[in-house]
Amino acid sequence: MLYLVGLGLSDETDITVKGLEIVKKAARVYLEAYTSILLVDQSVLESYYGRSIVVADREMVESNSDEILRDAQTEDVAFCVVGDPFGATTHTDLILRARELSIPVQAVPNASIMSGIGASGLQLYNFGQTVSMVFFLDNWRPASFYDRIKENRDIGLHTLVLLDIKVKEQSLENMARGIKIYEPPRYMTVGQCAQQMLEVEEDKKEGVYGPDSLAIGAARVGGRTEKFVAGTLKQLCDADDVLGPPLHSLVLLGKRAHELERDYAREFALDKDTWDKVWAANYGKQ
Amino acid sequence: MLYLVGLGLSDETDITVKGLEIVKKAARVYLEAYTSILLVDQSVLESYYGRSIVVADREMVESNSDEILRDAQTEDVAFCVVGDPFGATTHTDLILRARELSIPVQAVPNASIMSGIGASGLQLYNFGQTVSMVFFLDNWRPASFYDRIKENRDIGLHTLVLLDIKVKEQSLENMARGIKIYEPPRYMTVGQCAQQMLEVEEDKKEGVYGPDSLAIGAARVGGRTEKFVAGTLKQLCDADDVLGPPLHSLVLLGKRAHELERDYAREFALDKDTWDKVWAANYGKQ
Repeated sequence: MLYLVGLGLSDETDITVKGLEIVKKAARVYLEAYTSILLVDQSVLESYYGRSIVVADREMVESNSDEILRDAQTEDVAFCVVGDPFGATTHTDLILRARELSIPVQAVPNASIMSGIGASGLQLYNFGQTVSMVFFLDNWRPASFYDRIKENRDIGLHTLVLLDIKVKEQSLENMARGIKIYEPPRYMTVGQCAQQMLEVEEDKKEGVYGPDSLAIGAARVGGRTEKFVAGTLKQLCDADDVLGPPLHSLVLLGKRAHELERDYAREFALDKDTWDKVWAANYGKQ
Repeated sequence: MLYLVGLGLSDETDITVKGLEIVKKAARVYLEAYTSILLVDQSVLESYYGRSIVVADREMVESNSDEILRDAQTEDVAFCVVGDPFGATTHTDLILRARELSIPVQAVPNASIMSGIGASGLQLYNFGQTVSMVFFLDNWRPASFYDRIKENRDIGLHTLVLLDIKVKEQSLENMARGIKIYEPPRYMTVGQCAQQMLEVEEDKKEGVYGPDSLAIGAARVGGRTEKFVAGTLKQLCDADDVLGPPLHSLVLLGKRAHELERDYAREFALDKDTWDKVWAANYGKQ
């Protein structure tokens, strides 16, 4: 059996009891660690689970899935995924390959950022499609998120923006030379995301959002040090110090927002006067 | 401290290790049991947690929250919620009340149907806003879901439809007489939902969807007996026997769907020829 085990959002105790039993008994345990991370190190997980863990990087999952699936017809393999196994990143390829090999698959659900973001006080019913934001390069500034946000904003809905992480990336130079030296991991912050969003609006000028649009920055959702800050996109450009260490996410508010959402999130406002004023002028009216 | 503890979707072992520790130690343990249910009885939970549980019905949570919050400034109260504490139903009122009373609040996230539905093979990125479907009465057929689905469909997105449950409801007669006898619980099925959806389309005639629109019926998501069926809305009207016992949910597909979603969900098709034909004609083109 191939088990896809969700680990939840924060630390080693966020695994479910069901998931922990599976991890303890499986023949092999993999950890998918290139699309999200827990807030604790691999060694903490290994000691808590009482198991050694093979970290599965993107290359392994995408090009060498048969090694992960080896003998899974007759023994149990646990493939651990931060968050929910079917959350922000799905492993459809891996599962379709398991089906081809007649390997039964069972998923053990857990919290995902896509539901965990409800802790911001915004109602999950009022979210449209989720988008991703990648680190811009000088010559590569993918902006498809902008049209998606426009679709959500046109009907008054919130947008959850998931932020890029770079783990085990080579510099272009090392990649060109075939040198397997990896850069330190990088995690996009709410400030970087807000800045890139405003740059794209500057380019496109469709008025999808602007410096005064309300948003919520989220850090370490589901963890003991979870932190939210609410404010305008302009304010959030400079709020990384308040938010603290990764992982960060951002929600751009939709105008259909409810007054209960206003009251709840107001608690997180960097500046309650600005929050009240901008809200009164532009939100809660659809 | 008020702990909002997510219980996950299926059975007593879906609680996280962190959540279980809190439940075992709390001064009082409540279970919110009017918006969703686990697939196991309260007695199973009590024996697994080693604690007795007070079932909190809607009346208690909405009108008597101070009893739940009693002494929570100085002792720990665990308020358990099926799924994620901020999932389909939020308990914003309870938390705002706790804030007023200077009671610290901490949530323990868990799987929610809103992320768990990813097990259907549909990508969570491609979902628009979630809607709810209630049991229609002769003179009460709330159809606001229709406009919301239209918004999602106009931009090619999937819609998750959450289905009504009726727990501890009085008949109109008993309510009028003040007799506290409750009807047996009722859980809406995928067939009932699909039928009501088609009736509303018949009334409104805006062509938002029709009998040949593709959808996925889901039962007991996240549980060992999880079951999906894929087909047209017309086919899903008669698929309740295949799906089996509650809880059910339904996803109406958006046309922007990706071929990986087609291939994954095809495995669940009631009739693969129909699935392929309808897909080829209408989906994956946006």
